[in-house]
Amino acid sequence: MLASIITVGDEILIGQIVDTNSAWLGQKLNELGIKVHQIISISDDEAQILSTLENTLKESDFVFITGGLGPTKDDITKHTLCKFFDTKLVLHEDLLVKLKAYFEKRGRVINEANIGQAYLPENCTIIPNARGTAQAMWFEKDNKVVLSMPGVPHEMKNIMESEAIPLIKSKFELPEIIHKNIMTIGMGESIIAEKIVDIESNLPKNIKLAYLPNLGKVRLRLSAYTTKVEKINTINLVNNFSEQIVNRITENVYGFDEQKIEEVIGQLLLKNNETITTAESCTGGTIASILSSIPGCSAYYLGSYITYSYEMKMQELAVKQETLNKYGAVSEQCVEEMLDGLISRTKSTYGIAVSGIAGPSGGTEEKPVGTVYISVGDKNNKITKRYQFTNNREDNIIYSSNFALFMLYTFLKR
Amino acid sequence: MLASIITVGDEILIGQIVDTNSAWLGQKLNELGIKVHQIISISDDEAQILSTLENTLKESDFVFITGGLGPTKDDITKHTLCKFFDTKLVLHEDLLVKLKAYFEKRGRVINEANIGQAYLPENCTIIPNARGTAQAMWFEKDNKVVLSMPGVPHEMKNIMESEAIPLIKSKFELPEIIHKNIMTIGMGESIIAEKIVDIESNLPKNIKLAYLPNLGKVRLRLSAYTTKVEKINTINLVNNFSEQIVNRITENVYGFDEQKIEEVIGQLLLKNNETITTAESCTGGTIASILSSIPGCSAYYLGSYITYSYEMKMQELAVKQETLNKYGAVSEQCVEEMLDGLISRTKSTYGIAVSGIAGPSGGTEEKPVGTVYISVGDKNNKITKRYQFTNNREDNIIYSSNFALFMLYTFLKR
Repeated sequence: MLASIITVGDEILIGQIVDTNSAWLGQKLNELGIKVHQIISISDDEAQILSTLENTLKESDFVFITGGLGPTKDDITKHTLCKFFDTKLVLHEDLLVKLKAYFEKRGRVINEANIGQAYLPENCTIIPNARGTAQAMWFEKDNKVVLSMPGVPHEMKNIMESEAIPLIKSKFELPEIIHKNIMTIGMGESIIAEKIVDIESNLPKNIKLAYLPNLGKVRLRLSAYTTKVEKINTINLVNNFSEQIVNRITENVYGFDEQKIEEVIGQLLLKNNETITTAESCTGGTIASILSSIPGCSAYYLGSYITYSYEMKMQELAVKQETLNKYGAVSEQCVEEMLDGLISRTKSTYGIAVSGIAGPSGGTEEKPVGTVYISVGDKNNKITKRYQFTNNREDNIIYSSNFALFMLYTFLKR
Repeated sequence: MLASIITVGDEILIGQIVDTNSAWLGQKLNELGIKVHQIISISDDEAQILSTLENTLKESDFVFITGGLGPTKDDITKHTLCKFFDTKLVLHEDLLVKLKAYFEKRGRVINEANIGQAYLPENCTIIPNARGTAQAMWFEKDNKVVLSMPGVPHEMKNIMESEAIPLIKSKFELPEIIHKNIMTIGMGESIIAEKIVDIESNLPKNIKLAYLPNLGKVRLRLSAYTTKVEKINTINLVNNFSEQIVNRITENVYGFDEQKIEEVIGQLLLKNNETITTAESCTGGTIASILSSIPGCSAYYLGSYITYSYEMKMQELAVKQETLNKYGAVSEQCVEEMLDGLISRTKSTYGIAVSGIAGPSGGTEEKPVGTVYISVGDKNNKITKRYQFTNNREDNIIYSSNFALFMLYTFLKR
């Protein structure tokens, strides 16, 4: 089963909005075992809509269209669909009643443009939109389906989940597809590839492995197409390969599927009733903001010091003036004193201390831009490392944050 | 001039990542006066890449490809481009030297997969990638351009900005298009639209106004198509309309074009030799990370306290136990005490203090999720406000941060 997604709207082509609908649809369809063959974003233009529809229908069993519906005059998808399916708009009296009630409830009088939304193609099935005034339209032709939905994300999602997906499931026999994501941190994609080259080359033809890198993290995705009969075997096979990979790079694997490292760290801390604080210099609060992005983090995350200045490092974290003079703020000695000061002051179980040169300026021959020291530990033990990241300030901040979380995770698992 | 964008990668089709590259490219190309005709996301599949390339080249002067480059074996764009342009991969010795140095600098030995990245198509122009190991490739055929770039967003953006856009400008005669962005903060797009409705309706046909909202900020973009002869007149006209808009909503305008509010704040502080610190609770370091994202911020940004727990609020910022008991941590009284404590402790000229309920839990009838108190000021004066943002944790954190910066900016301009 193949699907194409068409998103209609100039606002996507000029980059005014990011198309998040397609990713969401891709995920949902993929889970259903419908393979998205292509995603195409086009203009609010009749000729382009017609030709794209024609081309995609040649290659797909399903075509999902989002956008281009609504009361404003530049929305032309509905008219174009009538042309394509050789039909005409007719008034749906029951819908008009509903639309009038919708506006009444909001204290507004229905206008002509909104009345127009009760006119829908004669030969389609109307899929109700519980969240808005533009209904979805389900067309069938030669055992293929074209589903046109509004582009407003929460309206589209609601239509899919409450109406369209159940309808698809009831009408079509769908294939089985299995995904497993291995989440890694602290190792580059090419090193991972080298380490698991033999495992990868043993993968059967129906299982694919993809590397999805992101500044210090790599997601390894195993995907397998299977059948109802073979499903359990395939799951076992995928799990078996997943295990082989995890065993090979075990220190860098922190979880599976949608897990985040900050979530896994949070769960470990919660389980043991332990707490964490951070002392950040070059990362400037990014580690704190990552840790605190997790709902409920207040149970283990006490807070942080962002000590950008020498004075704050000394005053808040008891870094010695002598240390700063002798070794500088970007040094093993400084981050270790920051860590000690942090833990002794906050009484948190664990701490992270980071100091580095994010750039673009501030680098020296001995410590170029991208030099970062990270120390993690508790009141008795610590691990301190020097890293050399990139020339780019933003990247250095993210790399430093990810490696700090990796070091903490490693420390927690000792 | 028409362009197509092709993004290659199963991870987009299955919705594992949202394609943000295309929106960014769409924006940049639009500014250059190149119209994006379509955006197509396809699989890492040779046949599909070939047919998509062929089809898009029929309709476009430029084809931008992102993704499908990298050292792992599932990256096949490079090989497919060789096939399409009837050429072969050759070793680029100079590139290999650079790649070796890249890995050496990171304390790693180059492996075979990375050596493979020095093999590139014979008949293309190599566009260097300063941020990664996969180079971009520029092909020309029948006066049309195909540019293949890695899919990692910051690598792709850097290649476009530092190499590809200058090359496009030098090689092609692009239409004259003038853009002016008015950067606003702290006012919703529909309120702005209402306030400037008369100005907008007076815009001549060749000048368009777009609203680009983003969680508390709205970018107003004026775009005008013009000719070489008319250019100066058009610039004057755009500036005139820009001035009218700025005069109407002057308190919410913080800058123009690519300026960031944190940059403008930094410049104001630098000019007066003043300093800033922050005390954050629900924003968990996000304001600090925004302030510290600006190179050179150490001249005015001393640091921050992220006081998530009651204890840290009391210990670090001298918030009174009584205040917390009586009014709670999310209260006018608490943020004002946080601000006072912050400034008296750090001796910074200005401070920002934030406390709120980011959600999803923790809301009450009186203070539902999204309730946020922000106080900004100096040692003598402060402004404190209560906001009611959304039900979404991430959005609340960003809204709070943006409104805190807006309040600080307003305070600085008094």
